[in-house]
Amino acid sequence: NKYMDLYDNSHYRLNILTNEWVLVTPHRTKRPWQGKKESLPATQAETYDPSCYLCPGNKRASGDTNPNYNEPYSFVNDFSALLPEVATEEHQNNLMQAKSESGICKVVCFSPDHSLTLPVMRITEIEKVISLWQKEYKELGNLPDINHVLIFENKGAIMGCSNPHPHGQIWAQKSIPTEALKKCTSLEAYWNQHQRSILEDYIQQEIEANERIISLNNNFVALVPYWAVWPYEVMIAPIKKLTSISELDESQKRSFAEIIKTVTILYDNLFETSFPYSAGINQAPTDGKDHPEWHFHMSFYPPLLRSATVKKFMVGYEMFANPQRDITAEQAADTLKQLPTTHYSQNPN
Amino acid sequence: NKYMDLYDNSHYRLNILTNEWVLVTPHRTKRPWQGKKESLPATQAETYDPSCYLCPGNKRASGDTNPNYNEPYSFVNDFSALLPEVATEEHQNNLMQAKSESGICKVVCFSPDHSLTLPVMRITEIEKVISLWQKEYKELGNLPDINHVLIFENKGAIMGCSNPHPHGQIWAQKSIPTEALKKCTSLEAYWNQHQRSILEDYIQQEIEANERIISLNNNFVALVPYWAVWPYEVMIAPIKKLTSISELDESQKRSFAEIIKTVTILYDNLFETSFPYSAGINQAPTDGKDHPEWHFHMSFYPPLLRSATVKKFMVGYEMFANPQRDITAEQAADTLKQLPTTHYSQNPN
Ligand SMILES: O=P(O)(O)O[C@H]1O[C@H](CO)[C@@H](O)[C@H](O)[C@H]1O
Ligand SMILES: O=P(O)(O)O[C@H]1O[C@H](CO)[C@@H](O)[C@H](O)[C@H]1O
Repeated sequence: NKYMDLYDNSHYRLNILTNEWVLVTPHRTKRPWQGKKESLPATQAETYDPSCYLCPGNKRASGDTNPNYNEPYSFVNDFSALLPEVATEEHQNNLMQAKSESGICKVVCFSPDHSLTLPVMRITEIEKVISLWQKEYKELGNLPDINHVLIFENKGAIMGCSNPHPHGQIWAQKSIPTEALKKCTSLEAYWNQHQRSILEDYIQQEIEANERIISLNNNFVALVPYWAVWPYEVMIAPIKKLTSISELDESQKRSFAEIIKTVTILYDNLFETSFPYSAGINQAPTDGKDHPEWHFHMSFYPPLLRSATVKKFMVGYEMFANPQRDITAEQAADTLKQLPTTHYSQNPN
Repeated sequence: NKYMDLYDNSHYRLNILTNEWVLVTPHRTKRPWQGKKESLPATQAETYDPSCYLCPGNKRASGDTNPNYNEPYSFVNDFSALLPEVATEEHQNNLMQAKSESGICKVVCFSPDHSLTLPVMRITEIEKVISLWQKEYKELGNLPDINHVLIFENKGAIMGCSNPHPHGQIWAQKSIPTEALKKCTSLEAYWNQHQRSILEDYIQQEIEANERIISLNNNFVALVPYWAVWPYEVMIAPIKKLTSISELDESQKRSFAEIIKTVTILYDNLFETSFPYSAGINQAPTDGKDHPEWHFHMSFYPPLLRSATVKKFMVGYEMFANPQRDITAEQAADTLKQLPTTHYSQNPN
C-alpha cells in the first residue's frame, strides 16, 4: 500500500460532505480494555409480544390501538418531540437566542413480526419498508411547513431504542437541521463548480480504488467512507445521483433493499450478535426548491468496536476536540467484506 | 415567566460559542422509559488498589512503575493516541484528503488516594490539581509543534473511563481541533466587533437574569448554559475574561477549586451516585499568537437524564440532524441549585 506511512501513523481525514475532520489513530487498538462491558442483547424474541406497544392489535401508551397490520405500518409518535402547532416566537435577547420549531414525528413499524430485524427480513419485505419511506417522505415533504424529513432507525438498547420490535422513526420539521445543512453546503459548492454530484465523483474514485467497498450491485454501493467516524461505519448510496428516495424506480428499489440486507447481515455476522446502530437517510430538503446537487445516502453509525460488548466511547477528547477513531476505514472494510453473506442464525450447525 | 410559551414548546437555541443550534423539546420527558438501564457504579473503592495501574508504586501496563507520589502526578500516556514524531505526509487524492498529525498525550492523577473523586477532595487538593494543569498547559504549549492543549476528564464507566482512580487526561497537538476552532471563530468575531469577550458579556447577562446560575463566588460563575445540550450540562468560567488557566492568580485559583468542588457535589447529590461526566477546559490556543479574544471555560457534559441508571442517548436524530434535549436549561438549573451543598456521603444518617 503506497500510503502505508499515513495509515500507520495518526492522521486527520476530511469528511467532504460535512467539511469536518476526523482523527485516525490506528495504533490505539493495542491498548488493553479494562473498561465498561455492555450486556448482550436478549436472545431471539417471540413473533408476537402481548406487552409490546408496536405489535398489531395491541394498545399503545397513548391508549390508541394498533390495527392488525400485515405490511409496514406508520403512525404519529405518541410522544412526538416536534408538534405541528407551536406559538411562533423569536427570542432574540442579545446573547440568548431562541426560535420556535414545529414538525411531525412518526414511527414506522417495519413488520408485524416482533422477532424480525432488517437482516433477517426478506428482500421483498424490505422493499415494502422502502415504499413506505417513499410515501412518508413525499407526503410529509409536501406539507407547507415541512422543509426537512429525516428517516432513521435506532437499533438496539445501547442505541437508546426502547423496544425491540423492528421499527424506525421519521422526524419531519420546518428548519433544516445542522448536520443536513453542512451537507447541503458541500454538495451545493461542488455542484456549482462542476455541475456534478460530489458523492457520485467520490463513489467513482472508491470503486476504482476498491479498498473500502463492502458491496456493490447494479445500482448501489456500500462502503466504509474514507472519513468514517464510527468503527464500522458504512454508507449506502446509489452509484448514479438520485436526489431522494422518491426517485427510486422499481429495480433501484430492489437494489437498495438487497444492499440494506447485505450490510446488516455483515454487521450481525461481525460479532455474531444483533448489531446495534443508528442509521439515517440524508436526502434533498423538502423546501419546494429544486435540489440537483443532492445525492441521497443512508449512513450506519454502529458503536461496537472490539466485540459484542465493547463499544467505542465518543467522550472527552471527542466532545471537546473532534471525533477520533481507533482503526482505519480500510481495516474495517477488510474485516466486513470477508464475512459470510448468510446470516449466522441460518447456519446449519 | 415572560417566555413561557417558548419554554413550553419545542424550540431551537443558539450556542453563541460554536454557532450551532440545539433543539429543546420540554414535553418529551412525559414519555415513559422502557429502554436501557445502566448498571450502578461499584460502591466506595479502597484508598489503595494493588491492581490499579495509577496507584503510587504500582506497575503500569507499559511496565513502568509509578513513583510513590503524594501530590497530583502526570506522565505520558502508555497508549497515546498522538505521538510527537510522525511521518509528515499530505494525502490529497482529490476527494480523499488526509494529513498527518502529531502530539503528546498525558495522564494526570488527581490524587494518590484511589478512592477519591473531585467532589470529595479538599479544596487545597483541587488547587494542586489546577496547579499541575497550569504547569502542563504552559510546558506543553511552549513546545514548538504544540498549538492546542486539551485538558479533560472522563469520569465513570459509562463515560468510557476504564479506571476509577481519580484522573484526567491531556491531549496536546499540532492542529487546532474542530470544536476549538468553532469557538475561536465566534470569540474572535465578537472581539473584533466589540473589543470585548463574548463570554464575559454573556455571563453578565446571565448574572442579571439569574435563571440559570448554579453557583457564584468572587471570581467564578457556574451556570447551565442557555444552549446546553446535555441534560445537566454546566459551564464554569471566570466572571472577568482570562484567556487561559495560566493567568489564574492564587485567589482566582482558590475560587476555581471551590466552584469545581461545589458543582461536582451538586452532581453527586442529584441522584446520590458518583455522577459520570466528561469535563473539558477550552482555552487559548498555544500557537504563539496573542489571543485577547479568548475566555477560558470548563464544561461538564454529563449523560444522566432521569436517574442514576437512565441516561440521555445522543443517537439517531441527534447524529443525523442536531442535538436535542428533553428538559430546559432553566429546569436543570432549578433542580441543581436547590440541592444540598454537602456531599451526600457525608450526611450523618
Ligand atoms: O484514553 P482512555 O481513557 O483509555 O479512553 C477514553 O478516552 C478517550 C479520549 O476521550 C476516548 O477516545 C476513548 O474512547 C475512551 O474510552
Ligand atoms: O424516540 P425514542 O426511540 O423513545 O428515543 C430515542 O430516539 C430519539 C431520537 O433519536 C432520541 O432523542 C432519544 O434520546 C432516544 O432514546
